[in-house]
Amino acid sequence: MDKITVFSPATVANLSCGYDVLGMCLEHVGDEITIKKTAVKGIKISKMIGYDLSLDVHKNAAGASALALLKHINIDFGFEIEIVKKVHPGSGIGSSASSAAGSVFGINELLGRPFSKTELIKFAMEGERAACGTPIADNVSPAILGGFTLVKSTNPLKVLSLPTLKDLFVVILHPQIEIKTADSRDILPKEVPLTDAVKQWANVGSFVSALYEKDYDLFSESLNDIIVEPYRSKLIPYFNDVKQTSLDNGSLGCGISGSGPSIFSICKGELSATKVTEKITEFYSTTSIDFHIFITKVNTSGIKTITP
Amino acid sequence: MDKITVFSPATVANLSCGYDVLGMCLEHVGDEITIKKTAVKGIKISKMIGYDLSLDVHKNAAGASALALLKHINIDFGFEIEIVKKVHPGSGIGSSASSAAGSVFGINELLGRPFSKTELIKFAMEGERAACGTPIADNVSPAILGGFTLVKSTNPLKVLSLPTLKDLFVVILHPQIEIKTADSRDILPKEVPLTDAVKQWANVGSFVSALYEKDYDLFSESLNDIIVEPYRSKLIPYFNDVKQTSLDNGSLGCGISGSGPSIFSICKGELSATKVTEKITEFYSTTSIDFHIFITKVNTSGIKTITP
Repeated sequence: MDKITVFSPATVANLSCGYDVLGMCLEHVGDEITIKKTAVKGIKISKMIGYDLSLDVHKNAAGASALALLKHINIDFGFEIEIVKKVHPGSGIGSSASSAAGSVFGINELLGRPFSKTELIKFAMEGERAACGTPIADNVSPAILGGFTLVKSTNPLKVLSLPTLKDLFVVILHPQIEIKTADSRDILPKEVPLTDAVKQWANVGSFVSALYEKDYDLFSESLNDIIVEPYRSKLIPYFNDVKQTSLDNGSLGCGISGSGPSIFSICKGELSATKVTEKITEFYSTTSIDFHIFITKVNTSGIKTITP
Repeated sequence: MDKITVFSPATVANLSCGYDVLGMCLEHVGDEITIKKTAVKGIKISKMIGYDLSLDVHKNAAGASALALLKHINIDFGFEIEIVKKVHPGSGIGSSASSAAGSVFGINELLGRPFSKTELIKFAMEGERAACGTPIADNVSPAILGGFTLVKSTNPLKVLSLPTLKDLFVVILHPQIEIKTADSRDILPKEVPLTDAVKQWANVGSFVSALYEKDYDLFSESLNDIIVEPYRSKLIPYFNDVKQTSLDNGSLGCGISGSGPSIFSICKGELSATKVTEKITEFYSTTSIDFHIFITKVNTSGIKTITP
C-alpha cells in the first residue's frame, strides 16, 4: 500500500469538568488526509484545501507530527501529505489535533503499524506544539482512540479509553468570532480555591463512574465546570444564554468546547438534539453574531481509513 | 425487635488523590453500638466503654446523629445507646464517623428501615458536625455503604458506591501522637495551583476507572496526592520514610488516612500486606514514637447488625 486517505475527526476537549484531561471524539466532522509514499525522504505537504494554513512542515500540525514520527523510524523514503481541511481552524473543536493525528495515523498504516496508539498520540502532540505552542493531549487522544478519553498524565503519557453512553448526540454551535488560544489560557487564574478544586474532582470522578454505570442522570450532573468556564465564558458572546437555552430544552450538559469559541451541548437521542439545535438557533439568530450550528454523534472508533 | 447491636467500621477518607471526596471502609476495626428502645422519648447515651468521650447527646457523634434522625420521624418512644468504642478517637480512621453512623443505622433497623442509606448518611453527617465542627461525608459514607465511595456533592447530598478490587489488604500505622482536626485543616492552603488541581482530577478520574476496570496498576498510579499530602505530611513524623518503605516493599499506594496521623498502605494480597507491615514496623521501631500497626481488609458491606 503506497497511498491512503484517512478521516481524522474533530474533538471536544475539557468536557466541562475535565479541563486539560477529558476529551470526546465527534463523528461527522473531520479532516480528510491523503498520504502518499514518495521516493524523496522526509515530509512534504503538497496540498491544502479548505483553509489557508501554512504548508511548512515545521509549522503545520500534520507536518510537525509526521516529522516527530519519522524521528523514531529509519526509512529510506518519505511521504507527501494532502489535506482537505474541514475542521475550521480556531473553532475550538480540535482543528490542529485533527490534522496532527491524521497524518501520523495514516503514515503508521502505510508502514504496517509499527507504532502503538499511545505512540501516535505522542507524535500528534508535537503537531499540537507546532500549531498552538503546547503539546496538549486532550484533543489528539480522542481523535486517535475515539469515544471518551482521559489523559491520566502527559509525562509519562498515559491515556485512558472510557466507555461511551449509547445514543449521545452532540450539538456544536460555532460563533464566528476568533479567540486566540493564548488569550483563553491567559484569562485563567494561576491558582484556584481548594474548595472549588474539590468540587471539580468530585465531578470528574462522577463523570467517569457515570460512563461505566450507563447513568445518564449522573453524567448530566457531572458536566459542571466551576473552575474554567466562569473565566472563559466571558470571551464567548451569549455563552450563558446558550447554555441556559440548551439545558432548558433537555440537553444533558452544555459547555465550552476546548478553549472555545464553539459551545457543545450533549443530548440523549436525536429528537432532543434537534430541539436543542432549533432553540439555540432561534436564540442566536437574535444576536448580531454569525454562527454555524450542526448536530453530530459521539464517534466511538476515532480516526479511520477511507481509501483504500 | 427492641434491641440491636451493630458493628460500625473504621474508614479511610481522602485516599490520596480524593481529598474530601473519596473514602474506603475497613473490615476488622469498628465500634460496637447497642441500641435499646425505651419508653422515654429522645436519646440517651447510657454507657461508653473504651474511651472517655462525652455522654452528652449534643456533643457525642452517636448522640448528635441520632437526634438528627429523630427530627425526621414522629415516635412516642426513645432510644438508649451503649457504645463499645474501639476506633481510637483522633487516630484518623473515622472514629467519630463510626459512632455517628452506627447509632443511626441501628435505630433505622429498630424502626423497620424508614430511612434510605443516603438519609442515614445525612443524619450521620450531623454527628460529624458535633464531633469535629464540620458535617463531612467522606467517612460516614463508606461506613454506611461499605467499599469505596465518592461524595459527588454534599448539597444536595449525592454519594456514589464504587466497585472494589479483589484481594485488597490495608495496613494502618497509627503513630501515637495527636493532631487536631482544626490544625490539619488550617495547614492547608486556601488556593492551589491550577496545574496541580488538573493532575489531581486526572488521578481521581483514573482511580475511578481503575476500580471499574479491575486495573491494579492504574489503581496504584492514581493513588497520588500532590495537593494535600505535601502539607499534612509535615504534621506526621517520618511520613515520607514510611511511605517510601511501603512502596519499596510492594504496596500499591500509601498516604495519610483522613487528616492523620494514621497512615494507610493498600496492598494486593495478604503476603504483601504482611511484608509491608514488617518493614514499616522495623523502621518505625527505630524512631522514638510509639505506634500501633495492624492489617485489615476493605470491607465491602459496611455497617452490619451483630445481634440479634
